[in-house]
Amino acid sequence: MTTKLLLEYDGTDFAGWARQPERRTVQDELEAAIATILREPVPVTVAGRTDAGVHAWGQVVSYDGEALDPLRLNGVLPPDVAVLESTPMQPGFDARRDARSRTYCYRVLNRRARSPRLRGTAWWVNRQLDRAALDACAAALVGTHDFTAFTPTQTEHVRFERDVFVAQWREPAEGLLEFWITADTFMRHMNRVLVGTMADVAHGLGTPEDFAFLLTGRPRSEAGATAPPHGLALASVAYDG
Amino acid sequence: MTTKLLLEYDGTDFAGWARQPERRTVQDELEAAIATILREPVPVTVAGRTDAGVHAWGQVVSYDGEALDPLRLNGVLPPDVAVLESTPMQPGFDARRDARSRTYCYRVLNRRARSPRLRGTAWWVNRQLDRAALDACAAALVGTHDFTAFTPTQTEHVRFERDVFVAQWREPAEGLLEFWITADTFMRHMNRVLVGTMADVAHGLGTPEDFAFLLTGRPRSEAGATAPPHGLALASVAYDG
Repeated sequence: MTTKLLLEYDGTDFAGWARQPERRTVQDELEAAIATILREPVPVTVAGRTDAGVHAWGQVVSYDGEALDPLRLNGVLPPDVAVLESTPMQPGFDARRDARSRTYCYRVLNRRARSPRLRGTAWWVNRQLDRAALDACAAALVGTHDFTAFTPTQTEHVRFERDVFVAQWREPAEGLLEFWITADTFMRHMNRVLVGTMADVAHGLGTPEDFAFLLTGRPRSEAGATAPPHGLALASVAYDG
Repeated sequence: MTTKLLLEYDGTDFAGWARQPERRTVQDELEAAIATILREPVPVTVAGRTDAGVHAWGQVVSYDGEALDPLRLNGVLPPDVAVLESTPMQPGFDARRDARSRTYCYRVLNRRARSPRLRGTAWWVNRQLDRAALDACAAALVGTHDFTAFTPTQTEHVRFERDVFVAQWREPAEGLLEFWITADTFMRHMNRVLVGTMADVAHGLGTPEDFAFLLTGRPRSEAGATAPPHGLALASVAYDG
């Protein structure tokens, strides 16, 4: 039997999703919790690897083994990770391969004063961002583009085109800007470099046309800085059916 | 000159607002920051004292002295407190005495699984709460009532009537319930005992009519448990003009 887990975590104190020697990772915590209950090692497959400090509201994971009650898993997991749902699936279900799209949200607090309550979940930018410029950049993202400029030059990726289904800025509260993006898959640092580069444009450093030109396979050096990880969250993963 | 400050803080690591020997308090941090800049001790007056662990999104404070740039104060304050606005006022303005009302928000996460991202800002209640019962209790709160049942028996309060202008439950996201209450002033623990008692009623322990009866000056022993502090935030304080 294959099981699908829906997962939420606070990335603050994690060195990201993927196991690394001597670092605290979400994968380690989850695999340890499952192994504690099932009394055998159970490797898991993840829909979207997240970097150190990046959060997840709706990460998806699969493993071969019986579905466990979320409350039971949560009793073993630390406070900064929780399983929200546990669903038995057809054998062969794979959280990564079967995912149709991933949706991320990057939060920017754009006001003069920093915010104690948002300090772990939004990037504080105190210079005024031009909302029209942000919107124009987001509109340019929709479609199939080459994102070479938005991932580190030293890379394990072999294909640099991605299909962006949705890209838009919203302002759910005054001064709180959210960038929502849905694509087939994402490359390493892609969302953070996109947000860092859009913030440059919204400060008057370049134009939305320059931004659109970056999507034609330009080198990393022509894009902007990598925005900090704590503003980013993997919001959801979509599957057929 | 008198100055009015609008303040936000994350109450997690504070022993509340009011100065106490050998405990970390918001008052201490703020007075220390002002004194660092003005180079003299400046006592402040607060609109709403908050308990240990309670947050503030819109606390108001006044002091006799010049208005300082929020960015300057925030450069001296620790990450869990920030000044959002600093406004010069007529001499004699008093953040406490001149406040017309205070608004608090208590957040309850009512779902089976706990939430890593809300763990510091919402009380997790995994048994289903009856929303109609909560709404009936909230409706009973509006008006002038005797809140003796909702504050500790050992008390420094001398008057137990309060005017409640607004009291309502909202559900801004699935499973996230917010209790919003606006009153002239509040007594110690009042919101937390109100929420703890309403949660009892929403679990079937008593009825909204029982709850309404508690508002006639009944003793503390007849009300429910005190809900935990981390779900509570002082949302705003209102003044004339």
